[in-house]
Amino acid sequence: MTTPIIFDTDPGVDDAQAIAIALAHPDIELLGLTTTFGNVEVATATYNALLLSELAGQSIPVAQGAAAPMSKPKSPPPAHIHGANGLGNIDLPPVKGQPQPVSAGQFIVDTVNARPGEVTLVAVAPLGNLAAALQIDPSIVDKVKRVVVMGGSIREGGNVTPVAEANLFNDPHAGARVLTAGWPLTMVGLDATHRCVLDPAAMARIAEAQGELGKVLAGSYEFYKAFYQQALGFDGCCPHDSCALAWLMKPELFTTQRGHLNVVTEGHAEGQTIFAPEGRPFITERWSTTPLAEVCLDADGAAVVDWIVETLS
Amino acid sequence: MTTPIIFDTDPGVDDAQAIAIALAHPDIELLGLTTTFGNVEVATATYNALLLSELAGQSIPVAQGAAAPMSKPKSPPPAHIHGANGLGNIDLPPVKGQPQPVSAGQFIVDTVNARPGEVTLVAVAPLGNLAAALQIDPSIVDKVKRVVVMGGSIREGGNVTPVAEANLFNDPHAGARVLTAGWPLTMVGLDATHRCVLDPAAMARIAEAQGELGKVLAGSYEFYKAFYQQALGFDGCCPHDSCALAWLMKPELFTTQRGHLNVVTEGHAEGQTIFAPEGRPFITERWSTTPLAEVCLDADGAAVVDWIVETLS
Repeated sequence: MTTPIIFDTDPGVDDAQAIAIALAHPDIELLGLTTTFGNVEVATATYNALLLSELAGQSIPVAQGAAAPMSKPKSPPPAHIHGANGLGNIDLPPVKGQPQPVSAGQFIVDTVNARPGEVTLVAVAPLGNLAAALQIDPSIVDKVKRVVVMGGSIREGGNVTPVAEANLFNDPHAGARVLTAGWPLTMVGLDATHRCVLDPAAMARIAEAQGELGKVLAGSYEFYKAFYQQALGFDGCCPHDSCALAWLMKPELFTTQRGHLNVVTEGHAEGQTIFAPEGRPFITERWSTTPLAEVCLDADGAAVVDWIVETLS
Repeated sequence: MTTPIIFDTDPGVDDAQAIAIALAHPDIELLGLTTTFGNVEVATATYNALLLSELAGQSIPVAQGAAAPMSKPKSPPPAHIHGANGLGNIDLPPVKGQPQPVSAGQFIVDTVNARPGEVTLVAVAPLGNLAAALQIDPSIVDKVKRVVVMGGSIREGGNVTPVAEANLFNDPHAGARVLTAGWPLTMVGLDATHRCVLDPAAMARIAEAQGELGKVLAGSYEFYKAFYQQALGFDGCCPHDSCALAWLMKPELFTTQRGHLNVVTEGHAEGQTIFAPEGRPFITERWSTTPLAEVCLDADGAAVVDWIVETLS
C-alpha cells in the first residue's frame, strides 16, 4: 500500500536528501512538491525542486508558494548553511520543467480535495503554504490524512534562537495557524532530528547509489557539513527533513507524546513551540485549549539514519 | 569564614526548609529575611518568617515587601500546594516579634550599603523585592557580592506553565529586571532542583534533630508531599529553595554554564527564562545583549539532599 504525499519544501541541503527519499521509496507516492522561501528564496526553491526530480528521472509537479512570511519581515536566507543556491554552491545544470500554473496553497487544496482522506502533507519548511491552503479552503482539515511537520523544538532548545527552530521562527504566524488547525498532526522537531547524524560514510553510500542526483546530494552535503563542523564541532549533519519521512514510514523509531501545541508569535520567544502534555494541569487552562497533536520527543537516531541509507542505496 | 546573606522568601513549605538551613548552617550569617507574596500572601509570608526563626530560638530581622506583581494581575496563592497558611495548614502558635519598620527593598539597600562587597542576596520567590531595591538604589549592582536566584527553567520545562517556573511566572517583569541587572548572578532553576528529591526518610532525620522547628518542617512536608504524590506520582518533594543555598555553599555539586538571560514578560511564554550560552551564535545578537550570568543546568541531586540532611541533623 503506497502513501500519497505532498512534500512542502525550501531546498536546502537536507531538503534535497528528503526529496531523494520521497522519489526513491517504493511505498511513497509523491504527488507534488510545493515550494516556499526559507533556506533559499522561493524561486531558487522551485528551481531546485524541479532539478532534483529531473535528476532522478522523474517528472513531479512543482507548485511555487510563499515568497515571504505572513506577517513579520523576511530574514535573508542562510547562505552560510545551505549555500546561496541552496545546494552548497555547487554548479547546477538548467532544468527542463516548469512549475504548475497554480500557487502551492491552491495545489494543496486541489490535490487534497481530489483524494479526500488519502493525502499526507509533509512540510519541512516555513509553514506559509499550508496556512495559505487553510485560508483558501478550511475544509481540508477534515480531508487530509495527516500533516507531518519538520519543525519546532520542545526540550531541545532552538537552532536559530535559544528557543526557536528555523522553520517556525521564519514564519511563526503561519506556524501557529498550521500547528493549531485541528487536523491530524505530528510534529517532528529538533528533539528528534538532533538525535540523528548523517556521517560521511553514510553519505558516500548514498552518493554511490544515486547517480546524477547522488552527485548533488554529496556535493551539497560537503558544504552543509562544513557548517556543522564549524558551528557545532561534529563530523556530519542532522538530516532534519528526512526525519519527517522517517516518522511517516517508520513511526516505531520515534518516541511521541500527545498534547496541545502553541506557537509564540512575538517577543523574545518568537517562533517557539510550547507543548502542554495531554491531561497535565497547569496554573490555568490557557495552554491546553488548542486541538491535540502528536509530538516527537526522541528518536532512535542510528536506526533513522540506517533507514535513510537503506532507502537511498 | 562566614557568608552573610539576605534571604528573600515567600514561605512556603520548601522555603521553610531553606530558612532552617540558613538558620542552622555555621558558615551562613543570616542578616535578614525579606518577604513577598508568592506561595502565600505577603502578610502570611512575614508571619511565617518570624515564626520559623523564633522556633529556632533566633531573632532575625524580617522586612516585608511586595504584596503583588510589578505589572501583571496577581494570581491567587497555590493553597493546594503549600496550604492556605503556607505551612501545610498545620496549627501554628502566635509570634512575638515584629517586622522591620522599612520595606524589604529598603532593607536590602541599607544592608548592602552597610557592608559593600560582602552581602549575598539569596532570592527564592517572585523577584519584586530585589527589583524594588534596584529601583531605590541602582548602585547596589556593584555592591552585592552575588545574587542567587531559585527560579526559572532552561531545558526542564516549567511547573506552572509548560515553559515557566512559578517564581518567574508570578512576576516576570521583576524577574526580567533582576536577571538582567548586571550584578554577579547565579540562577538555580528547575534544571537543578528537579534532580533533588527529599524523601520521607530524609525528612524524618531532619524532624528528629530540629526540635520545635522540626515539627513544623515535618508537618508541612506531609501536606506538600501529598501534592507531589498526586500531581507527579512520586514519594517525596523537590527542595527547590534549599538548592539555592546548596549552590552557595557547595557549588561543586552543580553543573553551570555562563550566558545571557532574557525573561519573557508577555504571551504564551510569559515567565520563561531564555538562556543564550556565551559565545553561541544565533540568527541575530538579540538574545546575547544582556549581561552575562551563570545558570545551573544540572545537579548531583543525591549529594545535594545529603548536604541538606547533614546541615539539619
